Amino acid sequence: MTLKIGVIGTGAIGREHIKRITNNLSGGKIVAVTDVNQESAKSAVEQFSLDAAIYPDDKALVADANVDAVLVTSWGPAHEQSVLAAIEAGKYVFCEKPLATTAEGCMRIVEAEMKHGKRLVQVGFMRRYDSGYVQLKEAIDSNYIGEPLMIRCVHRNPEVGDNYTTDMEINDTLVHEIDVLHWLINDDYKFVQVAFPKKTKRAAAHLQDPQLITLETNSGIIITAEVFVNCKYGYDIQCEVIGEEGVAYLPEFSGIATRKEAKFGTSILMDWKQRFIAAYDKELQDFMDSIKNTGEPNGPTSWDGYIAAVTADACVKSQQTGEKELVVLADKPDFYKN
Amino acid sequence: MTLKIGVIGTGAIGREHIKRITNNLSGGKIVAVTDVNQESAKSAVEQFSLDAAIYPDDKALVADANVDAVLVTSWGPAHEQSVLAAIEAGKYVFCEKPLATTAEGCMRIVEAEMKHGKRLVQVGFMRRYDSGYVQLKEAIDSNYIGEPLMIRCVHRNPEVGDNYTTDMEINDTLVHEIDVLHWLINDDYKFVQVAFPKKTKRAAAHLQDPQLITLETNSGIIITAEVFVNCKYGYDIQCEVIGEEGVAYLPEFSGIATRKEAKFGTSILMDWKQRFIAAYDKELQDFMDSIKNTGEPNGPTSWDGYIAAVTADACVKSQQTGEKELVVLADKPDFYKN
Amino acid sequence: MTLKIGVIGTGAIGREHIKRITNNLSGGKIVAVTDVNQESAKSAVEQFSLDAAIYPDDKALVADANVDAVLVTSWGPAHEQSVLAAIEAGKYVFCEKPLATTAEGCMRIVEAEMKHGKRLVQVGFMRRYDSGYVQLKEAIDSNYIGEPLMIRCVHRNPEVGDNYTTDMEINDTLVHEIDVLHWLINDDYKFVQVAFPKKTKRAAAHLQDPQLITLETNSGIIITAEVFVNCKYGYDIQCEVIGEEGVAYLPEFSGIATRKEAKFGTSILMDWKQRFIAAYDKELQDFMDSIKNTGEPNGPTSWDGYIAAVTADACVKSQQTGEKELVVLADKPDFYKN
Amino acid sequence: MTLKIGVIGTGAIGREHIKRITNNLSGGKIVAVTDVNQESAKSAVEQFSLDAAIYPDDKALVADANVDAVLVTSWGPAHEQSVLAAIEAGKYVFCEKPLATTAEGCMRIVEAEMKHGKRLVQVGFMRRYDSGYVQLKEAIDSNYIGEPLMIRCVHRNPEVGDNYTTDMEINDTLVHEIDVLHWLINDDYKFVQVAFPKKTKRAAAHLQDPQLITLETNSGIIITAEVFVNCKYGYDIQCEVIGEEGVAYLPEFSGIATRKEAKFGTSILMDWKQRFIAAYDKELQDFMDSIKNTGEPNGPTSWDGYIAAVTADACVKSQQTGEKELVVLADKPDFYKN
Ligand SMILES: [Mg+2]
Ligand SMILES: [Mg+2]
Ligand SMILES: [Mg+2]
Ligand SMILES: [Mg+2]
Repeated sequence: MTLKIGVIGTGAIGREHIKRITNNLSGGKIVAVTDVNQESAKSAVEQFSLDAAIYPDDKALVADANVDAVLVTSWGPAHEQSVLAAIEAGKYVFCEKPLATTAEGCMRIVEAEMKHGKRLVQVGFMRRYDSGYVQLKEAIDSNYIGEPLMIRCVHRNPEVGDNYTTDMEINDTLVHEIDVLHWLINDDYKFVQVAFPKKTKRAAAHLQDPQLITLETNSGIIITAEVFVNCKYGYDIQCEVIGEEGVAYLPEFSGIATRKEAKFGTSILMDWKQRFIAAYDKELQDFMDSIKNTGEPNGPTSWDGYIAAVTADACVKSQQTGEKELVVLADKPDFYKN
Repeated sequence: MTLKIGVIGTGAIGREHIKRITNNLSGGKIVAVTDVNQESAKSAVEQFSLDAAIYPDDKALVADANVDAVLVTSWGPAHEQSVLAAIEAGKYVFCEKPLATTAEGCMRIVEAEMKHGKRLVQVGFMRRYDSGYVQLKEAIDSNYIGEPLMIRCVHRNPEVGDNYTTDMEINDTLVHEIDVLHWLINDDYKFVQVAFPKKTKRAAAHLQDPQLITLETNSGIIITAEVFVNCKYGYDIQCEVIGEEGVAYLPEFSGIATRKEAKFGTSILMDWKQRFIAAYDKELQDFMDSIKNTGEPNGPTSWDGYIAAVTADACVKSQQTGEKELVVLADKPDFYKN
Repeated sequence: MTLKIGVIGTGAIGREHIKRITNNLSGGKIVAVTDVNQESAKSAVEQFSLDAAIYPDDKALVADANVDAVLVTSWGPAHEQSVLAAIEAGKYVFCEKPLATTAEGCMRIVEAEMKHGKRLVQVGFMRRYDSGYVQLKEAIDSNYIGEPLMIRCVHRNPEVGDNYTTDMEINDTLVHEIDVLHWLINDDYKFVQVAFPKKTKRAAAHLQDPQLITLETNSGIIITAEVFVNCKYGYDIQCEVIGEEGVAYLPEFSGIATRKEAKFGTSILMDWKQRFIAAYDKELQDFMDSIKNTGEPNGPTSWDGYIAAVTADACVKSQQTGEKELVVLADKPDFYKN
Repeated sequence: MTLKIGVIGTGAIGREHIKRITNNLSGGKIVAVTDVNQESAKSAVEQFSLDAAIYPDDKALVADANVDAVLVTSWGPAHEQSVLAAIEAGKYVFCEKPLATTAEGCMRIVEAEMKHGKRLVQVGFMRRYDSGYVQLKEAIDSNYIGEPLMIRCVHRNPEVGDNYTTDMEINDTLVHEIDVLHWLINDDYKFVQVAFPKKTKRAAAHLQDPQLITLETNSGIIITAEVFVNCKYGYDIQCEVIGEEGVAYLPEFSGIATRKEAKFGTSILMDWKQRFIAAYDKELQDFMDSIKNTGEPNGPTSWDGYIAAVTADACVKSQQTGEKELVVLADKPDFYKN
């Protein structure tokens, strides 16, 4: 049984996923595409020799009876409408982050999905599929390090373009930590606070970089997260969980080690694309496999998309106030408990 | 275009590859199977819901016009006959190691393939597809560590069964180093010598374990390889290339690190299957992709299978004589130069 | 020329220093001792076969014309009086932390020393003499990692006794970070804030453990320091400086590495005494050498003792208020610049 | 009680030890010096403001009744005569390596010392005092890694001068491994063999570099030692003991770690003098302390010097023959067992 997939948005990320499904993964097939730029849609079909219908817009694509599932890889502000259309039509959805650009938009999706009565949506938070995070979660869940008390995260990037703004350190960068950490410790955020350390000379005038974000959970775990997108030296993701019995670390990227010029060193990635490349494959493969095996996707849910939106909003507010801000989440519906 | 594959041998490794091609990789399809045990062939078809013909033997399978390529995953002594039959029929072959159980058998395959006039065969030496070895080769080829002068390898296994014999440390275990190292340094072996250090109490009475193997190449590089299959603590593959400008190491397996009970440690695998799991995927994907894109497989050739057989024979001879033994290779045909 | 030293306080730390000066270091000699417990003073003389006068109190010891320098290793509340007496008599002083138990007491010592007109006092903050911190300071001072923007410290202890209280996480434990960090970055603290993460079940009922302390410097560097004195797994001191060009780490303790039981690990100390053992030797040797060579001690000054007291007070206040607290330092006198 | 020491040889190493004893260590005092170059002897006295007699030669120095112990730091060929003279006079001797330049010379010292009836001599093999080797020995002796089966050593130097010859890779460089390894495993060497890998272009025309030395012990442990004195990248001493239960490694030098320019690295020393600087202090302090406390030195004995000479001779012979050579040791006298 092959999952027939329609793609909404044939830009860079859309094509990455088309390539993945067509050439590297098993069980899926691209049968329809659309893009606000119709030329882009056509060229994607040609590039991968797809046997796929080209639609003028998301609504038309979703209406195609041949489409089982929809991949939403358009720009962020368009996500909500496409996801809602797909749910309306009872189609599965894999939606790249953000699920919607506002917490309210995310809640509308949550409500539509609950009304439909079955989980249809998976959000593209790929870190949950990274073997390092999976091992870290196992170390926590097996109680190997005891009860988690503190977490320390680092999210560093060599540099960013000029259009990268202060709030994007939260919405585009920290959002990956926001999602993966609450999954890791199975807890929800209660307070957040953002501090601005001394600024690097490499950041644009309008950009506050680095930033230090503190997140406190309901059970009292304190998370310290550093976002530093002009760190120059590499793309570097770190996560350290300090528990009652010990400490566990996300693995370093597995590069060759060398002894040369008075240094014993291992390579650090410069390009973020390589860091989670296996996780991108796994999240989509799991999306297709879970639907085949259980009738529902098994990854990050609409509710996780909502949590990310509310938490990121609180962080952005704290960037402005400098104060500790409350994370006000609605009660979690039973529908999303498992 | 899908590569239609017939599988000869539906035991454990055969099924791993069937599963891989069916569920994880792209571009291939199992269309035929056979096994000396017909029940096994049938059960494999059922297990993976294959739409595949079941044949009484390798000759019948190879004769199926629907079969583009053959996967040889029977027991070692049967490989040569199946590979020769496939070449005879002009079919592509992916053959698990050994290509044949004797150097002469490998040479018969080499000659049959040259007579056919195009490369058809890939041998299942998967390490060349491991990202660590690939990075190591890049470090060498880019001259980052200068001219290689020495190599030091370690191949350790927690334990082996009672039927594992002294010569298997060469034929089953060291053979992976034999293949990957001459590829890594693009050089051929000239002498080998095996020494027996103090024996571990964990080895069976009949088994010499550990063993230290020295391989010297035409250009004078000396390789020291330790094989230790009852090392108890883990499955551990190491490779260190010492060059004129520096030293490069195969990456350690990327496990989580922990601080616990007065140790800062990273996990070592106990199960060898996990170590090269991504490489198994990549070797088969590359086999299928290369045939599609260039009309020939691109991995380890019949000639590489022949080199492995001759070198392993010299090592086994040295196990018996205790002396340095010559590795007598035929001249490399132009057919296998590239 | 031998520096003739009188010791005030012959408890455990006093005897460690007596042993050091007598058996391991060069250029010093214990010529006088005193202790509130006269039996302790006598037994110290016997234990190390000292040729030393035994005095009834600090004033009498300081008055001995044969005494060039005084070692203050009594209990904390007695330090101020002994240091003032020594300055009054124009004797050099090596005083274990705290210099005085209050900021006002430290200021009285500062003023007495300035009145005397020459630096006489060194405070026993030994970390500045640890080769790891020295290397870290070189990396910063040579601009190898660029301008420091953030620092992250960890101070973990396996366990503490029942008499260890919440404020001691600052006054006894964090105080070492307080001293060494402002020296490392050559900057002063402006704000501090203490947060209480989820408490470990291993801490006594009255003890808040772990604690997360944030210190912000005049130039905007933000330091995050974790104090966790019941971490169970080991004594572990970490320090990471994040700069504009890169990141530098305090070395891990240099223990043997092992591969055993599926772990590749290095040993972590359980006993804090071993961690800075070389630094204790170096601080005292430098005290004696500097006096011999330049007429003044060269280590942490009375002013550094004052900074530690003021900063620790602000941290303890923040433990109580939960708020960010200002560190109000007097202007640094020229006397203490470089 | 102060040990009064006479120094024979006031070149670079002699002065290092004079400085050490005078400024850094406790319990010793330089009371006499001599050198074939009398000006050197005089300038050493001045440099360190010694209160020491200057003698015309070793015999005169040894005859000084004020001298308790002799430090032999002249050039190698002169060692034997000075050591014999000191033993004759019943004086303690700390002799830098080599004890004598021939095995016969070492045996003459052994016999003289046995005739004297008490151990007087310590040879300057400082690695036994390195905290890394001490930890490694503890790991072995406590059976933490089980019975040792193999050892792998590396001795690398960035570069050597033109006067460094092929045999010096054994006599000056490997000799440190020869001494420390038989102490580490409490076993004696039986066979040695030297192989010459591909030569680095950085070695002088007359110099074979690197070299691979195999040493086999009486119990069957096989040691593989690499000597590479033009490795360019750093001074690097490695030692790995492979046992029945696990593997233990000599610690890496404890330098700061950095993340910079796409590398996570720790520094490697370029200058060999820093590597064992603490061990040099400890060996001399132990020499003085042991004499004071037990009446005999406790470090490497004359017999250890003899073992080093015989083993190095066999290695040099193998450099010439290319064959495995027997290490022919006399039976160990009870005098040297403990
Ligand atoms: Mg994603
Ligand atoms: Mg294979
Ligand atoms: Mg101190
Ligand atoms: Mg020495």
